Amino acid sequence: MAALKSFIEVRPDSHFPIQNLPFGVFKHRPSSLPRPAVAIGDYVLDLSEIALAGLFDGPLLSSSDCFLQPNLNKFLSLGRPAWKEARATLQKLLSFFLNCSHEDIRLFSCIAATEPKLRDDASLREKSLLPMSEVEMLLPIVIGDYSDFFSSMHHAKNCGTIFRGPENPINLNWFHLPIAYHGRASSIVISGTDVIRPRGQGPPTGSPPPYFGPSRKLDFELEMAAVVGTGNELGKPVDVNEAGDHIFGLVLMNDWSARDIQAWEYVPLGPFLGKSFITTLSPWIVTLDALEPFTCDAPKQDPPPLPYLAEKSSKNYNISLEVQIKPAGVEESAVVTRTNFNHLYWTITQQLAHHTINGCNLRPGDLLGTGTISGPDPDSYGCLLELTWNGQKPLPLNSNTTRKFLEDGDEVTITGCCKVSTAALSHYVHLLCSRLSLVCKR
Amino acid sequence: MAALKSFIEVRPDSHFPIQNLPFGVFKHRPSSLPRPAVAIGDYVLDLSEIALAGLFDGPLLSSSDCFLQPNLNKFLSLGRPAWKEARATLQKLLSFFLNCSHEDIRLFSCIAATEPKLRDDASLREKSLLPMSEVEMLLPIVIGDYSDFFSSMHHAKNCGTIFRGPENPINLNWFHLPIAYHGRASSIVISGTDVIRPRGQGPPTGSPPPYFGPSRKLDFELEMAAVVGTGNELGKPVDVNEAGDHIFGLVLMNDWSARDIQAWEYVPLGPFLGKSFITTLSPWIVTLDALEPFTCDAPKQDPPPLPYLAEKSSKNYNISLEVQIKPAGVEESAVVTRTNFNHLYWTITQQLAHHTINGCNLRPGDLLGTGTISGPDPDSYGCLLELTWNGQKPLPLNSNTTRKFLEDGDEVTITGCCKVSTAALSHYVHLLCSRLSLVCKR
Repeated sequence: MAALKSFIEVRPDSHFPIQNLPFGVFKHRPSSLPRPAVAIGDYVLDLSEIALAGLFDGPLLSSSDCFLQPNLNKFLSLGRPAWKEARATLQKLLSFFLNCSHEDIRLFSCIAATEPKLRDDASLREKSLLPMSEVEMLLPIVIGDYSDFFSSMHHAKNCGTIFRGPENPINLNWFHLPIAYHGRASSIVISGTDVIRPRGQGPPTGSPPPYFGPSRKLDFELEMAAVVGTGNELGKPVDVNEAGDHIFGLVLMNDWSARDIQAWEYVPLGPFLGKSFITTLSPWIVTLDALEPFTCDAPKQDPPPLPYLAEKSSKNYNISLEVQIKPAGVEESAVVTRTNFNHLYWTITQQLAHHTINGCNLRPGDLLGTGTISGPDPDSYGCLLELTWNGQKPLPLNSNTTRKFLEDGDEVTITGCCKVSTAALSHYVHLLCSRLSLVCKR
Repeated sequence: MAALKSFIEVRPDSHFPIQNLPFGVFKHRPSSLPRPAVAIGDYVLDLSEIALAGLFDGPLLSSSDCFLQPNLNKFLSLGRPAWKEARATLQKLLSFFLNCSHEDIRLFSCIAATEPKLRDDASLREKSLLPMSEVEMLLPIVIGDYSDFFSSMHHAKNCGTIFRGPENPINLNWFHLPIAYHGRASSIVISGTDVIRPRGQGPPTGSPPPYFGPSRKLDFELEMAAVVGTGNELGKPVDVNEAGDHIFGLVLMNDWSARDIQAWEYVPLGPFLGKSFITTLSPWIVTLDALEPFTCDAPKQDPPPLPYLAEKSSKNYNISLEVQIKPAGVEESAVVTRTNFNHLYWTITQQLAHHTINGCNLRPGDLLGTGTISGPDPDSYGCLLELTWNGQKPLPLNSNTTRKFLEDGDEVTITGCCKVSTAALSHYVHLLCSRLSLVCKR
């Protein structure tokens, strides 16, 4: 028995069924203004047209110009009730028929009625529904600050073992606080932007001078990032149990890393140029509301966190993640890792609460990266540093190609997907799909 | 024989003679729009009024709306020729008489003619010249990214000795590259903003759990910061010999630090919450053009820098800096350190070139902090961590008050000043004066 469906045909394997409705920003033609949208099947729905048609008629959005902006920041600043109102309105407008069970309602915030105004208005459909293949996706948010956490214990352990040996791979502080560093906001780009191989200093071979030239250890990092919705005032920390209301949704992120530059520069102030040359985001932000059916228990934390990090209910998300690499001139890409968001030790709500405990203010559109998401097994590690053990074990891509680190022309694709199969659903629901297509150039 | 003077009376000890003309942004009344200004004597000159009166009549600024903005970013993006044109126009408009020697011309970009349009227009003077005491200064720039360097060798050596012992206080990489980390942009505030004592985790005393509570080691850091004027494209590094043209000017900066939070969190990814609770800037940006007479040779670097950091002419600035602390309820403040900008080992142009060598893009308004500016002598250290040797040697403020770290109610003032005395000048020129007045609250 099917649940909520859209009148727009959505292939069963689409990542954009009506249950997802991730938010992004697109441009139809090079000269068009950037406009907010949601994805539905193979289409983007232009939210500025829906707003201009007066179809956002709920109390919070009916008089707002948040969808007439070139980015989502204004919408993000309105808070969860407005985000829920937008989602409910869009599900009504896009729905075809409803036959919701109680289970559906629990899982998908299934709505009580359909609204045919878009479905039955050919002119509005033509204006507002555009084939995804015909639009250009843009960075959906203005990112004031980007912070990157280090929340996978497997990743921390592997990096510590590679760089400092197996005795004490993880520093004591790691188990007491979600370690993070400030990242570079200016070089965050949208999926599909070419990556230029960074130049820089690497460790000297034996004695000085250091190596200088194009990085010889260019790596991807499989991450996701929380997009901050509502911020907080300087000096006013966010309670960990209210932190979820400050997070609009999640994106996929590739935190490209130059391991040689990073290794030479990072003591004592942390990563800088080894990371700041580029960071790639998926074009679609999947809302926490859409992810709600895929929550799961977060790992038990030992030692127990300090009270300001202790959550009444500590949630993670069951999101399958994989990375593929396609060398230049090759048809087939190779899956190099499969892992899951639920391997994170520190939750995104703990990250946000920790980030503000000193009074630091977050703003709408700020980005909180999870850090590399590695699982426990060698085929679930989230970067080549771990997968090839710092280049010591070349990774086979196909019968005659291996990789220690990325080579020029490699294309790296990160995919995330939530799947659920319950009595109420005859099909999988794919929530995230974002291709990070990259060419490493010199 | 006097050189360039303003028709506005400027006290001999003023930091804002006509040779300075630093740029800022102010609000006249709470309801007024923020507007760009320069400081002259005890006045601010509203540049929006000068622009509206058509007095920016040079080729680059005559049709620009850069002074009708709420911040300086647009003006900064125009580049050095526009900055020089603005300075020359303002010096003409504000000048009284000119009798420039060749030396004056060299030192002060002394201009060839005066322009009486402002001096002789009472109505325009009334609109545009406002007593500094009647306006509120605002953060003059929108800061996209803030990076903080670590460029004083004395500071690096002292911190290394305190935390790791005297054997190898400075890491080998420090001598090959200007070490830096990304800082937090959202919590950068204007001088005078209250500082709220941050809460956070500190190192455990003996065994876990860690300390949690208000920081017990709140510190100032005496820094200056370069304000980026024109940026660079992603993937296009800036040549070190052209880096100066990308820097608009300098501000004073207090990089407030919670040493206990920092000590516990910073391995391996660097400082985070120990810094991100607040960072204070002076309201006035002193241009590199105004600082030109105060250039001096930068320290000789050994080992010689790699070619991408090797400058044809390696310049520093002779800027006297001091920090005063005034405890709550006390009239007199105590000078706790006197140092100089010229102690920096890495120049601001090397910092900028290094920052972009990996292709990282800078944007107008970005901030590049110097790091704590410590001199070689114990009374020239730039923070309490060094001055009190991590709290081991309390610092006397007056006959009955000492400090290990900052206490609630302390007011910290950083002052910077360039002084020159040549045959052409009968008086000192004070270039920088910015009070960082702070109340530490819980």
